[in-house]
Amino acid sequence: MTDYRSEYPFGVRHDGPEPASAGAEPGSSPPRATGTLESGLPLDAFDARLFREQSETVVAKLEKHLSDVSIRGLDLTDPAALADAARALMTTERTRIAPFDERKLAGIVDLYIRTGIQVHSPGYMGRQFSGVVPLSGVIDFVSSVVNQPSSFYEAAQLPSVAERIMAEELNAFIGWERDGFAMVTTSGGSLANLTALLAARNQAFPGFWSEGGSGLAGQPRPAVAVGDDVHYSVARAAGVMGIGDAQIVRLPLNERHQICVERARGVLDAAARRGLKVFCLVASSGTTAMGAFDPLDELGDLARERGLWLHVDGAHGASLLVSDELRHKLRGIEKADSLTWDAHKMLFTPAPCTLLFYRNKENSLGAFRQRASYVFDEEPDIYTALDSGEKNFECTKRPMIMPLWTLWAVYGRALFARKIEYLCRLTADAHRILVRESDFETLHCPEANILCFRFRPAGLGDEDVHDVQVEIRNRIKSEGNFLISKVDVDEVAALRVVMMNHQVTSEHFRMLLGEIRRVGRDLLRQNRPSR
Amino acid sequence: MTDYRSEYPFGVRHDGPEPASAGAEPGSSPPRATGTLESGLPLDAFDARLFREQSETVVAKLEKHLSDVSIRGLDLTDPAALADAARALMTTERTRIAPFDERKLAGIVDLYIRTGIQVHSPGYMGRQFSGVVPLSGVIDFVSSVVNQPSSFYEAAQLPSVAERIMAEELNAFIGWERDGFAMVTTSGGSLANLTALLAARNQAFPGFWSEGGSGLAGQPRPAVAVGDDVHYSVARAAGVMGIGDAQIVRLPLNERHQICVERARGVLDAAARRGLKVFCLVASSGTTAMGAFDPLDELGDLARERGLWLHVDGAHGASLLVSDELRHKLRGIEKADSLTWDAHKMLFTPAPCTLLFYRNKENSLGAFRQRASYVFDEEPDIYTALDSGEKNFECTKRPMIMPLWTLWAVYGRALFARKIEYLCRLTADAHRILVRESDFETLHCPEANILCFRFRPAGLGDEDVHDVQVEIRNRIKSEGNFLISKVDVDEVAALRVVMMNHQVTSEHFRMLLGEIRRVGRDLLRQNRPSR
Repeated sequence: MTDYRSEYPFGVRHDGPEPASAGAEPGSSPPRATGTLESGLPLDAFDARLFREQSETVVAKLEKHLSDVSIRGLDLTDPAALADAARALMTTERTRIAPFDERKLAGIVDLYIRTGIQVHSPGYMGRQFSGVVPLSGVIDFVSSVVNQPSSFYEAAQLPSVAERIMAEELNAFIGWERDGFAMVTTSGGSLANLTALLAARNQAFPGFWSEGGSGLAGQPRPAVAVGDDVHYSVARAAGVMGIGDAQIVRLPLNERHQICVERARGVLDAAARRGLKVFCLVASSGTTAMGAFDPLDELGDLARERGLWLHVDGAHGASLLVSDELRHKLRGIEKADSLTWDAHKMLFTPAPCTLLFYRNKENSLGAFRQRASYVFDEEPDIYTALDSGEKNFECTKRPMIMPLWTLWAVYGRALFARKIEYLCRLTADAHRILVRESDFETLHCPEANILCFRFRPAGLGDEDVHDVQVEIRNRIKSEGNFLISKVDVDEVAALRVVMMNHQVTSEHFRMLLGEIRRVGRDLLRQNRPSR
Repeated sequence: MTDYRSEYPFGVRHDGPEPASAGAEPGSSPPRATGTLESGLPLDAFDARLFREQSETVVAKLEKHLSDVSIRGLDLTDPAALADAARALMTTERTRIAPFDERKLAGIVDLYIRTGIQVHSPGYMGRQFSGVVPLSGVIDFVSSVVNQPSSFYEAAQLPSVAERIMAEELNAFIGWERDGFAMVTTSGGSLANLTALLAARNQAFPGFWSEGGSGLAGQPRPAVAVGDDVHYSVARAAGVMGIGDAQIVRLPLNERHQICVERARGVLDAAARRGLKVFCLVASSGTTAMGAFDPLDELGDLARERGLWLHVDGAHGASLLVSDELRHKLRGIEKADSLTWDAHKMLFTPAPCTLLFYRNKENSLGAFRQRASYVFDEEPDIYTALDSGEKNFECTKRPMIMPLWTLWAVYGRALFARKIEYLCRLTADAHRILVRESDFETLHCPEANILCFRFRPAGLGDEDVHDVQVEIRNRIKSEGNFLISKVDVDEVAALRVVMMNHQVTSEHFRMLLGEIRRVGRDLLRQNRPSR
């Protein structure tokens, strides 16, 4: 074969000095290449040396950001003012290509970092997304530049192989047969939940893919049973996939906000009497609202007994599997048919990185059934055997496994286990602190790293509890020291912290409580809320 | 309010020297902080200075990669061998956190780059994904580290504002009323197509979201009309959303592989007679297979006349709108109801970055209908007005607009227009070259940057044409100089080039033809294929 690698270095017309050679020392800095490419495009925008300079600008700013351990929440800006600031950074050149302006880049990055949610600060206790382990961001940068869409092995060989490796590594904690299970990555937990439900729907109703819901006229309606605190994406999936969100059967929760298995049986029976054919049971590990872990062992038995597909939405909590201390929260996971697991939550990688596991690898082919000649090769071979395009929704898919696999390869499992264990311990500590405070109400004993509570001093009437929590949350947010969230628990608002940052200590939590108390008392004094 | 920013710098217990201070000069390099955090985690993995060193390693490798203009295709590796190489880079530490090892990182990045599809090489003419403009990768790096999920304004203020700005900038080329249209970003063209079809379905069948397809018993079945070359994601969407892929009505194409509007009327009439209620017409700008642009102006009239939602899948070709020379390919786009536009294709940003436009902003609320207290705020305000979580499928969504907006802000529209114009000109040149070669068959006059053709020398029987193209494609791929794709055109395989790289010249295309000819002749001589 002819090797063109060194023979044909054309394609670039140099009007200026030589561009950066492939072996240039990162430290050296000769004058930048200028001129145009054969295409007439200025070399500038595609110049490798300029890329390095831009990267250095950004790395310095990110380094500063990561080393800033000050306590801060959110710097909430009026969108109109922010739009003005953003527009002021835009070139006014309409017809020609503007030359690169380092000040514009610096301005954009500064504005981006400053106005963002401060996930790396100890003031951040707000939501389920997390500051990333820095190395995972570094590898994600490689993905952004090399651009290897990973639904097909030939386009992204290492990501395809890394998916297989991570599947095996993580399945060691799930416990399925090594040759029997399957895993695909997909763009977020909502898409993973939809994909699993489609596989379940298509297995239970083999004509649905081709004929749609109309093909079932006169038969019992397909339905999905869920815990009452299930993530909104599951009910949304029912609406999307033509089941109809009215066919969501909500199972009652026990006092720990887990699905109550005993009462679930009666609800399923009642659903059958109403003409519903429940084909899938969705459990949560843990719930978004309170971090409750449904009893998978018992639910697995129930599902088997009734011929239901058991899908576990472990977007948040599946990561507890990697900890020897905490794995028991998912006892029975091996009985599930499918599992959603967000690495961008509790494995601390850039979003999205969602893993969808199936106990039975044949089932992973059931969510979508179709062929297209330009993407799906006609005969599988050792290469196309690693293609995932028939199993995941996306055609072009980010090689999202790379940050996770790299962290796992470089630091090993213990990094994740230790961080998760700390976060759960911290949350238990926070709960113990709350219990001793007479003006706060605890709502549950936290199972993981989500804690819900209310400020409820003597003199606050039941009818005002809801509005006071909402207003406290808003004021805490606008003061800008801490970011927390709110959630309705039994239809009354509660304050919610999610401990995702290992730089948060119980001392920070005490400071938060002090701020809540001050804000809450001000509120009750100044402006008694009315409904 | 209390300002904790400077008062409480705790949370870190130092066993070693001070960690990098927030204002450290990027140039200086004191010994790295070691020790542990309050959490017991080693500081190392989260150290900002180590982050900089890791970034520098990666930037040097990416700089080298970007400056390598050698001609190369794919280095296809046996997955088992690659898995061994990958496993060799993994720590064997199972219980403790392994210390950072720079050689492992270097090994991972080298392997990742070497085994990837070489989108930045002139040998790459293979698919519709592209080398990125380097600056867009740099900004995507910021997104990977700061982690601002962008379905909610408060979590990602600048991305939310940048979405609005880019929507306005790009709508200037579509031409909808400034106050009337809407745009959301979503994770890939397939998800955008599904989202638009859901909005169309829910508008035409208001009970479908809640009741599903079973609710339509006895009524005409919902159906979607598409051009015969439509992307597989559209038929897949019909299967997903409970319409059923058998209810895809395929419209015939004319000799230019565009939807033939005259014949389409008859096909729609026949569908109605079969009991189908077509509610949506999907046009392509352009098609994946051949880059054909459907006649939007006429299809817009047809859709209006029959009360159909017109969705345009412009994943590949919508970007031609930014060029004054090429915009006419989408003449009539203002008549569409929705438009899918992948910035990660012809606007050269990291994947995914898909924009979904609606002519009527009310329609953008129709795809998903649901509320959840922990994410959707109860009363809209100036902040939550920019939330997109009710309009896009994802809950956690990458701030994918940032690379696009940054390129647009820094370089302006002309960068995109010039590059696209060059790629389309290059493709027309390639077609002119082919026409003059008697042993090649041209299949269309390319409308954009996709060109399909066959090697068809005298003596190659009709019955062998298909297999010879497939085998040529595979051999070209395995020789490793060029990467091209194949597609079936009228059920016979053809070779396909997609010109996404401005460093490709017509000289490279001539070299490719030379290689195809050599490989093809060898094939015919050595091993006459049999079916």
